Amino acid sequence: MQVAFEEAKKGFEEGGVPIGACLLTEEGKVIGRGHNMRVQKSSATLHGETSCFENAGRLPASVYKKCTLYTTLSPCSMCSGAALLFKIPRIVLGENETFVGAEKWLESNGVEVVNVHNKECKNLMDRFIKEKPEVWNEDIGE
Amino acid sequence: MQVAFEEAKKGFEEGGVPIGACLLTEEGKVIGRGHNMRVQKSSATLHGETSCFENAGRLPASVYKKCTLYTTLSPCSMCSGAALLFKIPRIVLGENETFVGAEKWLESNGVEVVNVHNKECKNLMDRFIKEKPEVWNEDIGE
Repeated sequence: MQVAFEEAKKGFEEGGVPIGACLLTEEGKVIGRGHNMRVQKSSATLHGETSCFENAGRLPASVYKKCTLYTTLSPCSMCSGAALLFKIPRIVLGENETFVGAEKWLESNGVEVVNVHNKECKNLMDRFIKEKPEVWNEDIGE
Repeated sequence: MQVAFEEAKKGFEEGGVPIGACLLTEEGKVIGRGHNMRVQKSSATLHGETSCFENAGRLPASVYKKCTLYTTLSPCSMCSGAALLFKIPRIVLGENETFVGAEKWLESNGVEVVNVHNKECKNLMDRFIKEKPEVWNEDIGE
């Protein structure tokens, strides 16, 4: 979660949506990391998690199926769908007070979803949403 | 569907996964189009639909909610999740014989899903899967 949070902070410092993610192998090796690029790349689809998958590059199913995805915020329907597509078995999320994504859908498809209730993740989102509510609403399709 | 199929053909000609999509306004104006970029950009997340959303750029919710997404193939969980995130009310798909995506999930969330059983879309996918089965399996996380 520390790496995912570093990514989120990087996003915040760049003036973007501060959500970060990373992909860890069973052995604890980081094979992908990224943060939301809505502002930086004017991207509609590079959320923290999709950005992390994108940066990890093309990987075979055999790798994904042994990974854990760490993300600073409960994953939206697109990012949850990406995790399901790649058959990621476990997702650790920083918090879901700011936004509740498709956690139930993930769980109903057999994904283990763990919320670590991280205050740093929550505080960073609070600060961002207070400063740029319109960017946040755009990001979640509101 | 013609525009989405043109995108799919472009993808095929580039040596990539031949799935295309486009985003149409109520008035029938194409405001986004794209095709799968797994091979071309070594991208794990740019499917036909996400590529289309990405090329359409940052759009407000008010625009998405009046759009129809055309895609040559039944949308996978990631692309279905992207459509749900943006509250796209209607998806027209070329075919779902090759692959059945998260259609039921879309419908259970109120999205109108229309299958036009397009033979051209199906034939192009048949040809691609015969030629490059490993790329196709990678694309759907198999």
